[in-house]
Amino acid sequence: MAIEGSKQETQAGRIRLGMVGGGQGAFIGAVHRIAARIDDQFDLVAGALSSDPARAKASALDLGIAADRAYGSFEEMARAEAARPDGIEAVSIVTPNHMHAPAAKAFLQAGIHVICDKPITTTVGEAQELVDLVKETGKVFVLTHNYTGYPMIRQARAMVAAGELGDIRLVQVEYPQDWLTERAELSGSKQAEWRTDPKRSGAGGAIGDIGTHAYNLAAFVTGLETDELLAQLTAFVPGRLLDDDVQILLRYKGGARGMLWASQVAVGHENGLKLRVYGTKGGFEWVQADPNYLWFTRFGQPKQLFTRGGNGAWPEAARVTRVPGGHPEGYLEGFATIYAEAARAIRAAREGGSADADVIYPTVEDGLKGMQFIEAAVASSKSGNVWTKVG
Amino acid sequence: MAIEGSKQETQAGRIRLGMVGGGQGAFIGAVHRIAARIDDQFDLVAGALSSDPARAKASALDLGIAADRAYGSFEEMARAEAARPDGIEAVSIVTPNHMHAPAAKAFLQAGIHVICDKPITTTVGEAQELVDLVKETGKVFVLTHNYTGYPMIRQARAMVAAGELGDIRLVQVEYPQDWLTERAELSGSKQAEWRTDPKRSGAGGAIGDIGTHAYNLAAFVTGLETDELLAQLTAFVPGRLLDDDVQILLRYKGGARGMLWASQVAVGHENGLKLRVYGTKGGFEWVQADPNYLWFTRFGQPKQLFTRGGNGAWPEAARVTRVPGGHPEGYLEGFATIYAEAARAIRAAREGGSADADVIYPTVEDGLKGMQFIEAAVASSKSGNVWTKVG
Amino acid sequence: MAIEGSKQETQAGRIRLGMVGGGQGAFIGAVHRIAARIDDQFDLVAGALSSDPARAKASALDLGIAADRAYGSFEEMARAEAARPDGIEAVSIVTPNHMHAPAAKAFLQAGIHVICDKPITTTVGEAQELVDLVKETGKVFVLTHNYTGYPMIRQARAMVAAGELGDIRLVQVEYPQDWLTERAELSGSKQAEWRTDPKRSGAGGAIGDIGTHAYNLAAFVTGLETDELLAQLTAFVPGRLLDDDVQILLRYKGGARGMLWASQVAVGHENGLKLRVYGTKGGFEWVQADPNYLWFTRFGQPKQLFTRGGNGAWPEAARVTRVPGGHPEGYLEGFATIYAEAARAIRAAREGGSADADVIYPTVEDGLKGMQFIEAAVASSKSGNVWTKVG
Amino acid sequence: MAIEGSKQETQAGRIRLGMVGGGQGAFIGAVHRIAARIDDQFDLVAGALSSDPARAKASALDLGIAADRAYGSFEEMARAEAARPDGIEAVSIVTPNHMHAPAAKAFLQAGIHVICDKPITTTVGEAQELVDLVKETGKVFVLTHNYTGYPMIRQARAMVAAGELGDIRLVQVEYPQDWLTERAELSGSKQAEWRTDPKRSGAGGAIGDIGTHAYNLAAFVTGLETDELLAQLTAFVPGRLLDDDVQILLRYKGGARGMLWASQVAVGHENGLKLRVYGTKGGFEWVQADPNYLWFTRFGQPKQLFTRGGNGAWPEAARVTRVPGGHPEGYLEGFATIYAEAARAIRAAREGGSADADVIYPTVEDGLKGMQFIEAAVASSKSGNVWTKVG
Repeated sequence: MAIEGSKQETQAGRIRLGMVGGGQGAFIGAVHRIAARIDDQFDLVAGALSSDPARAKASALDLGIAADRAYGSFEEMARAEAARPDGIEAVSIVTPNHMHAPAAKAFLQAGIHVICDKPITTTVGEAQELVDLVKETGKVFVLTHNYTGYPMIRQARAMVAAGELGDIRLVQVEYPQDWLTERAELSGSKQAEWRTDPKRSGAGGAIGDIGTHAYNLAAFVTGLETDELLAQLTAFVPGRLLDDDVQILLRYKGGARGMLWASQVAVGHENGLKLRVYGTKGGFEWVQADPNYLWFTRFGQPKQLFTRGGNGAWPEAARVTRVPGGHPEGYLEGFATIYAEAARAIRAAREGGSADADVIYPTVEDGLKGMQFIEAAVASSKSGNVWTKVG
Repeated sequence: MAIEGSKQETQAGRIRLGMVGGGQGAFIGAVHRIAARIDDQFDLVAGALSSDPARAKASALDLGIAADRAYGSFEEMARAEAARPDGIEAVSIVTPNHMHAPAAKAFLQAGIHVICDKPITTTVGEAQELVDLVKETGKVFVLTHNYTGYPMIRQARAMVAAGELGDIRLVQVEYPQDWLTERAELSGSKQAEWRTDPKRSGAGGAIGDIGTHAYNLAAFVTGLETDELLAQLTAFVPGRLLDDDVQILLRYKGGARGMLWASQVAVGHENGLKLRVYGTKGGFEWVQADPNYLWFTRFGQPKQLFTRGGNGAWPEAARVTRVPGGHPEGYLEGFATIYAEAARAIRAAREGGSADADVIYPTVEDGLKGMQFIEAAVASSKSGNVWTKVG
Repeated sequence: MAIEGSKQETQAGRIRLGMVGGGQGAFIGAVHRIAARIDDQFDLVAGALSSDPARAKASALDLGIAADRAYGSFEEMARAEAARPDGIEAVSIVTPNHMHAPAAKAFLQAGIHVICDKPITTTVGEAQELVDLVKETGKVFVLTHNYTGYPMIRQARAMVAAGELGDIRLVQVEYPQDWLTERAELSGSKQAEWRTDPKRSGAGGAIGDIGTHAYNLAAFVTGLETDELLAQLTAFVPGRLLDDDVQILLRYKGGARGMLWASQVAVGHENGLKLRVYGTKGGFEWVQADPNYLWFTRFGQPKQLFTRGGNGAWPEAARVTRVPGGHPEGYLEGFATIYAEAARAIRAAREGGSADADVIYPTVEDGLKGMQFIEAAVASSKSGNVWTKVG
Repeated sequence: MAIEGSKQETQAGRIRLGMVGGGQGAFIGAVHRIAARIDDQFDLVAGALSSDPARAKASALDLGIAADRAYGSFEEMARAEAARPDGIEAVSIVTPNHMHAPAAKAFLQAGIHVICDKPITTTVGEAQELVDLVKETGKVFVLTHNYTGYPMIRQARAMVAAGELGDIRLVQVEYPQDWLTERAELSGSKQAEWRTDPKRSGAGGAIGDIGTHAYNLAAFVTGLETDELLAQLTAFVPGRLLDDDVQILLRYKGGARGMLWASQVAVGHENGLKLRVYGTKGGFEWVQADPNYLWFTRFGQPKQLFTRGGNGAWPEAARVTRVPGGHPEGYLEGFATIYAEAARAIRAAREGGSADADVIYPTVEDGLKGMQFIEAAVASSKSGNVWTKVG
C-alpha cells in the first residue's frame, strides 16, 4: 500500500446533470449514474429516461428526480431545462444508438454540454453534423469510450508518446464476447434485441457495439491514423440481421499494420478486450478484465509488470487513480474518470476557458472517426472484403 | 456481457451520514466516502474530520458540508447532531485505531448508527464494551472488513455453507505487502507513522492492520471458530516498535487447521490478500487483487473458474454485483457493498424492524473476535510462541 | 500425483537412425537427438551432419558415431547405408529448408524412412514430388511439426472430433516472437542468417519458419481445410529480404473463418504460439509456453482447466503423457512424441504392416499443404493483399 | 528464439549405469531412466529392478538389459558388477524409502557411485552412516532432489548468493497435492500403499514424500540453516497411518523465519510446489508447475519476469538449459540435469579428480539434513507441536 489520499475527491459546486435514456431495465444508464457519482462532481436533477412516458416518470421518481423535471421526451427536456435558471448544465445520452444524434443536437442547440454513449451516431453524416455543431456552439462534447479512462491505458498512451516503444510497427486489438453465441435476441433479452436490430443499432452489429471500442482504444493509445482497412464481417448465427463477428486488417498511415478482431460468438469470453502494441524498441499488453496491469517489455530486457498505483506507475496513471496499488480498480472507476474529465472541461467552460492540457477524453471528432471506421468496414465487407479507404 | 441492470441502484430517501476522521491527507476516509456514494444510499452532511479543528473545518468545506455541521470534535458532533431534527442517522468512524472506541461509544449513546473501520478498538475490553452497548442501544453497528463485500467472497461463503467443499480441513490465508520493507515511518509517511506507533495502533502492527483482515475473511467464508493459535510476530525492520510480519498456526474447533501469514516486508506484494480453503469434497482459491475470479475444484474433477457476473455465479454473488461479467469490479465496489448492506440494515431499523436475512455485514461481535485474535497472538508471541486459547 | 508408470517406456530392438544436418553449432539437430532418445526407440548410428565435410566428421565423433559412418554428404550416406546389412532404417533431415527435398528424395529412393524438419521444401512442386515418392516407395515420412506432439493438443483435436465444440466457427492462431526485432542477421547469428536468406529459406521468412507451424497446428486440431486466404506479409526491419511479420485472414471450407498472425518483431514474445478455437457449443485456448493446460468453456458454463495428466485429461492426451499432472512436460517431450509415433509407424512397417489408427503424426501431405499455404500467402501479398485460393 | 545449440549435448564414453528398483509398474524408475538418457551420458546395463525376482528379470528384458545382468537382488548385483571388468560405474536406487540405505551401503562398499532417490533413508542414524561411508569411500553420492535441477532455481540460488535479495528475512515454501484426499491406499494404488505405510516410508508420510522436497528446495536456494522448528503433522483421512498434511514454522539461524506447508489433501493441487523468498532488497517467487519463470522484484521497482533461456537469464540458468526461451522445459529436463551433474562428477572421479565448482547436486549431507528435518518435525508434532531443535 503506497497509501495516498484519493486523487479524485469531491469539489464544491457540483454540475447539474440531466439524462436521456437509462430508465428502468436499462443497463448502461445505471453505469453512467454510478460513474457520475463516484467523484461527486455531478447532481442528477432531470431526466427523459425512457421513450415510454410512464416509464420515464417512474424511473425518475426511483432516482429521486423531482417530478417537474421528469420529462416525457428529450425535446421537451432540452427546451424546459434551457429555460430554467437552475437548468442542467450537461446531459448524458444513454439511449440506443439511433437516438444519439437527434438528442445530442437538441441539447447542443439549447446550450447544454453533452456526454454521449458510443457509437456517436448511426451514420457518418450525422456524426459530421455533430462535429460542426460542437464547433459552432463551443459546448463540451464527451463520448464515453470508457476504456480510455483506465489508468494503465493512460499510461500506455503516455509511454507511446514518450517514445518508450520507438516507432510503432504493429497493433493487435481484440474484443471477444460470447453472449450472442445463440440467438438471444429471440429469447427476451432486451439488450440483445436492440443490438441486433439495424433500425436501432445502424449498419453495424458487433462492429458498432464493441468493434468501435477496440478501434478507438488502439487509436487513443497509439495516436495512429488509419489509411485503409479490409474487413470481413460475419453473422454466424443463422437469422441474425447484423454481424456478430468482425475480422479486420488495418493499414495505418506511416506504415504500421494492425489486426482487429471483435466477436460476440467466441465461447469462453466475457468482455475480453485486449490491446497489444509493438514498436522498434518495446512492446506492451493490456487486458480489460485485469486492467490494473500493464505488461511492458523493452527489447532485450525482461518483461516488467507495471501496476496501477504501484512501482512503475507514470503520473498520467497516478492522476486518475483512486486507491493504492494492489487494491483493484475496475470498469466503474474507469468510466468515472471519463465523467471526472468531463467535469473538469465543463468547469473550465463555466469560467469561459478551456480545460487544462492534461484533461483527456474522447471527443466528437473521435466519434466521427468511429463512424468512418464502421462505414468503411461495412463497405469493405459488402464489396467482397476488399481494401477500403477510411475517412 | 450477460447484460442486466445494476443490482444496486439508488433508492429514494437517502440516509443522513456523518464522518469522524478522514480529513485532508487521510486515505481511508476518501474510500469510505466513495463507497457511500456508489449506490447513492447516503448523504454526507456532517463531519468531525480531523483532530486538528482548523483542518477539520477546511476538510468539511472541501466536501461541501455546511459550515455549521463541520465540527471540531466527535463529542461535539454527537451532541449537536443528536439534537437536530435533521441530524445524522449514522456515522462513519475512520480515525486511527485508538479513537474508534470512544467515538463509537459517543454516537451509539447518542442514538446514532455506527459504521466503523477495523480493527474495532485497541483492546478486547473496549470491544466487549461496544458489544454490550450495541446490544443495549439496539443500534446498527457495521465494521468495515471491506473484503467481505466482494461478490466472489460472498459466493465462497455460500458454497461452504451449502456443503460444496464437504467438511473443511484446511485454511490457508495470507496478506503480504511490502510497503514497510524499509523504515517508512521515519521518512514522512503519515500512514506508516500511526500504523507503527503502539499509542495509535494498539499492541499489534501488521497483525492489527492486515492480519485481522485475513483472519476475519477466513472466518467469514468458512464459519469456523478458532480454538487456539500459535503466533510468531516479528519486527524485521530495526527500530520498528510493532510487528511487521505475522506467522500463525490456527487450530479451529472441529479439527480444521489453518496457517495465516501477514507481512509488510514481503518485497513484491502490494495487497496480496489470498484465501484458500480445502475440504473433503472440494477446494477453492481467491485473490483480492483479482477479485472477480473464484477458482473451484471438486475433488477428482477439472478446476473451474467462476466469474463474478458470469457463468457459475451464485445468487449470493449476483445480489451484490453491479456490472456484467468480464467488466471488473474492484476494491471500491466491494467497500460500497458494505455500505449498501449497512443502508439496508439502517432502513429496516428506521421502520422498527431488522434487516432481511440476506443482508450480511461484519458486526460488532466480529470486531470483538478480531480483538481476541490480536490479543491471543500478541500473548502467544510474547510467551515464546506457544499455543494460546482464543476468546 | 495421479502416479502411473511412464507411457513411453523403452522397447527392445531400437531403430537404427541417421541424421543429415545438425552438426556443431546447429540448434534443431540437438533437439531432434534428445527427442529421439527420450523414449529410447532409436540408435543414432550414422550422420552427414554438415555440408562442410570436416565439421561433419568432427560432429559425428562428438556424438559417438563410428568414423566409417560419418559421411561428408547425404548422397554418400544414402548410398552407403542402403548397402550395409546393418544400415540405417530411418533418417532425420534437420538442414536448412532448401536441402530438405533433395535429401528426402535420396533416402526415400534408397528405401529409408524419413523424419524431416519443416517446412517440408521450398516450393510446392518439390513437395508434390515428395508426396508422389512416398506413395511410390511406401516409406514412412514424418514431418516434425512438433507442436502436434503436445498432449493437450492431442486432446484438443480429439475434443473437436468428438463434437465438444459443435460446429467450428472461428480459429484464432498466432505465433509471435521478437528475436528479429533488430537486424540480427548482420550481427553473426547463424540462425538469423539462413532464416532471412531467400536462397536457403525459400520465398517465405516468418511465414515459413513459424507461420507454417501456426497454420499446421490449427489444421491438425480442427481438421478444417482452407478455401482461400488473404495475406499481408511485411518486412518491418529495413534491409531485410524476407517477411518478418505475417497477417492472414482465412476462409475455411464450410464457412469457418480464421485469423493467423506470426511475427518475429513483436517485442516481448519468445515463442508465443497460441491457438484458440470457437464453435457453436464450446471454445478453447492453448498456449505453447504453458502447454500442460487446456482452457475449455462449454457455452453457458464456467471455464474449465484441463491439465495434462490430471482430471479432465482424455485418453488421447494420456497416451502421450510421461509424468503425472502438475509435473510439467515441455517442448522436448512434445518433440519426442513425434519420434515415438514415428517409431511405431516404422516398427509396423518392419513387419510389413501399417501403424495402428491411434498413431498420429504430420505427414508428407501435411507438408504439401504447408507449402500451398506459403505459396498462396506470398502470392496474395505480392498481388496487393487479395483473396487467393489455397491448393 | 534466442537460438543456441543445446548446452547438454552428448559426450563420448558414456557411464555404465545399474538400477535398483524401478521395475514394471513403478513410476519413479522410468523417470530416472528418461532423465539419464536425455543428455546421453549413461548406458543402463544392469538392474535389480524388483524385489520379486521374476518381475526383476522381465523388467530387465523390457529395458534391453542383458539377461546375465538382470539380478534378483541388489546384493547380488553389487557383488557381480564389482567383479566384472565392464561392471557398472554407478547405480540408481529408486526403491521405496526403507531400501535406500541398505542398497546404498552395498554399492558404496563395492566401489560404485550412487544416485539415490529421496528421502535418503528412513532414520537419521542410517543417513549418518551413509555420510560416513561416502567420506570413507570417496565415491560420488547424488540425492535426486530433482527440483534443484530446474534452471530458474539455479538462478534463484545464484541471485541470493550474489546479494540481489539483500539479507533474507522470510521463506514461504509449500507443496500441496490432492491425490490422497480420499483413502487411495485402500483402492489399489500401489503408489499410495507404500507412501502411507510406516514400514516402507518411515515415520513420515507427506513430510517424507514431499515435505523434504520443499525443505530441501528452500535450503538449496537460500543457503539458510535451520535452528529450530515447530510442526503440526496431521492425518486428516480417517484410518490413515501417516501424516497427510504438514504445517511447520521455521526459525533459521541468523534470524530469518519460514513457513512450510505440504499437503496431500489440498483439493485442486497436483504438484503445487512453490517457493517464495523475501529479503531486505528484493523478493522472488517460483512455481514448479510453471518452472520456466522466475518473478523477481527489487524493492521499489516493478516486478520483472525472468524466463529460462530469455532476457534476464543468468549464466547459472543458461548452463543447464537445453532449448530456447519460450519453449518450455519441464520436470524431466530438471531431473536430467541432476543426472548430467552426476555425470560430470563421476567423469571427474574417473580421472581421479573432483568436479568443477559449478557442478551442483544434492549431496549425502543434504540427505542427512532432510532426515534431521523429518525427525525434528515428527518429534515436535508428537510432543504437542512445540519448538524443537533441528540437527
